[in-house]
Amino acid sequence: MDERIREHAAVLVDWSARVEAGDDVVLSVGPDAHELAVAVAEKLGERGANLLATYSSGEVSRAYLRAHDGDFDENPDHERALLEETDVYLSIGGGRNTSATADVPGETRQAHRSARTEIREARYETRWVSTVHPTRSLAQQANMAYEEYQEFAYDAILRDWESLADEMAQLKTLLDEGSEVRLVSQGTDLTMRIDDRTAVNSAASVDYDSHNLPSGEVFTAPSGTEGEVTFDVPMTLRGEPVRNARLEFEDGEVVDYDAEQGEAVIGEILDTDEGARRLGELGIGMNRGIDRYTDNILFDEKMGETVHLAVGRAYDACLPEGESGNESAVHVDMITDVSEESRLEIDGEVVQRNGTFRWEDGFEERED
Amino acid sequence: MDERIREHAAVLVDWSARVEAGDDVVLSVGPDAHELAVAVAEKLGERGANLLATYSSGEVSRAYLRAHDGDFDENPDHERALLEETDVYLSIGGGRNTSATADVPGETRQAHRSARTEIREARYETRWVSTVHPTRSLAQQANMAYEEYQEFAYDAILRDWESLADEMAQLKTLLDEGSEVRLVSQGTDLTMRIDDRTAVNSAASVDYDSHNLPSGEVFTAPSGTEGEVTFDVPMTLRGEPVRNARLEFEDGEVVDYDAEQGEAVIGEILDTDEGARRLGELGIGMNRGIDRYTDNILFDEKMGETVHLAVGRAYDACLPEGESGNESAVHVDMITDVSEESRLEIDGEVVQRNGTFRWEDGFEERED
Repeated sequence: MDERIREHAAVLVDWSARVEAGDDVVLSVGPDAHELAVAVAEKLGERGANLLATYSSGEVSRAYLRAHDGDFDENPDHERALLEETDVYLSIGGGRNTSATADVPGETRQAHRSARTEIREARYETRWVSTVHPTRSLAQQANMAYEEYQEFAYDAILRDWESLADEMAQLKTLLDEGSEVRLVSQGTDLTMRIDDRTAVNSAASVDYDSHNLPSGEVFTAPSGTEGEVTFDVPMTLRGEPVRNARLEFEDGEVVDYDAEQGEAVIGEILDTDEGARRLGELGIGMNRGIDRYTDNILFDEKMGETVHLAVGRAYDACLPEGESGNESAVHVDMITDVSEESRLEIDGEVVQRNGTFRWEDGFEERED
Repeated sequence: MDERIREHAAVLVDWSARVEAGDDVVLSVGPDAHELAVAVAEKLGERGANLLATYSSGEVSRAYLRAHDGDFDENPDHERALLEETDVYLSIGGGRNTSATADVPGETRQAHRSARTEIREARYETRWVSTVHPTRSLAQQANMAYEEYQEFAYDAILRDWESLADEMAQLKTLLDEGSEVRLVSQGTDLTMRIDDRTAVNSAASVDYDSHNLPSGEVFTAPSGTEGEVTFDVPMTLRGEPVRNARLEFEDGEVVDYDAEQGEAVIGEILDTDEGARRLGELGIGMNRGIDRYTDNILFDEKMGETVHLAVGRAYDACLPEGESGNESAVHVDMITDVSEESRLEIDGEVVQRNGTFRWEDGFEERED
């Protein structure tokens, strides 16, 4: 076995999910993630945790969903009972075709999702972590050769997370203490209020309220957004390529939008509900192990020298106790490159310029 | 998709497990059983059942078991909760190596098994059915080419089960009404008492107390065994090849044994506990779709023109209400060919001669 697979498993089990003896663990395995599943099982055995493996296949889901009449039972008892008794939920994605469910009608997908709200909530109550095993299909989606993609993925995943967490803590402090963020870049000049919000130092561990591996971003829940933003990082939303989407905000709401490509899907997303026209997240990518876009949001949004914004639902972790933030059925991340001609200001002070933070070498204090 | 896979799924879901709308179904999928899982998921969707797929991999188990210190938690809550809420448990085996767990120490395996008694019992409370997807590794174990093995397996699985159930009902009636069975063949002359016992018409459906697909046998729980039996069908027990094992019984107990090959493993099995020296099952194979030995007990014991006996545990379904039959930690089936120079008698009447039953063409009433 490739030693990197064992290291990936160790990071997932020990750093990310903090697995301990006696933990009841569900390991959700993609059809092509078998090797990582074996390595994770070994770690779980060493820790004395209890393992139940589930099978997460796009092709199995597709067959089931397309054959079903769409009137789904609400939160089936067996799956709910399982998740209510689960301490740790590890999802290791990796199929053979990232488009495996492409022909499942949107309404079927939505009906199935809606019927499983309590199951999803029970999962979010566990120490859950999502990662992927680098597969050939993910390499293909990234336009990369298989071995090239493996190197890319392990560079992103096998970080010194403790040291990155320390670095990200600096940005978290600035955001926690700040009231207003301004982002200036090509096609972008946006201000957002962040008073009373708490930033998440997303260091790929449940101990940091962080549930993705890789992670490496600091995010918060903004409000009162004004100005415009252009998302120049290419992406695929709902199966459609989107290029240079531009949103214009007034008083926290999108009042205008366009895109070079994929304008219709942007409109569809914004029309989902009221909350879909407001921001739910401002995230600042700080994982320098991720050095290119691979059309996979798990990696893209954490890339160093990028900033992403999500329309839709805000995360509770960012909000004052008892306060609920922006609500929506969607949470759609879009990314902008800040490596050139860009600056990020908090309360008028530049904290990042052209992708370099003020505590890094190469950052110059100058009049912008 | 091979149409036979769809037919296999339909038999499993409709005939074997009698799945209905609203059933909470666990589908346990082997790593190489993906295609059958897709076909089963489609059927479950059509029926409006609720699907949770689990992943059953020998390599994952091996990694977990070998890494564990062997002090296993008893009946982990999450898995128990799942099974207690499950209506139907479908196991579709099929890995890439039938020896995947060969180097897991026996004591670890046994400790893990013992710690999961309640989980196993909860599974037996569901409408459970075990089948296999014909894989290359099973073909290899059978000494067969892949396509040849697929034909063999589907011949065994895609029977007219309703008509076989009707035929088997005739033998069940004779056994239910009979008091003594005598089996005579080369190296075999054995008598067993079956008073008050109920035979199971194992027609591959939970409606017949039958939990294997393929099935096609009638079995009961004998007692008071006298005489000797030679198991001339080759088999592998605990990883060891066994040839022509011979057991000698007095007053229901094995008093002597030998074997051309594998005598040690026979001794080991018989020494497990007191019940391991008595018979738990007499089974008569009636699936003529199975025409050769493939070193897989799921198929071998159902083969037409064979009889199998198991030392160890008896099935409750064969016993009078409230009476417990032979108890043992083991249940080990061994098979004898009755296609030539053989007869099976119930209360002195020949019901099968040289593999042909009295209701079949070619059976002759004659003095033996």
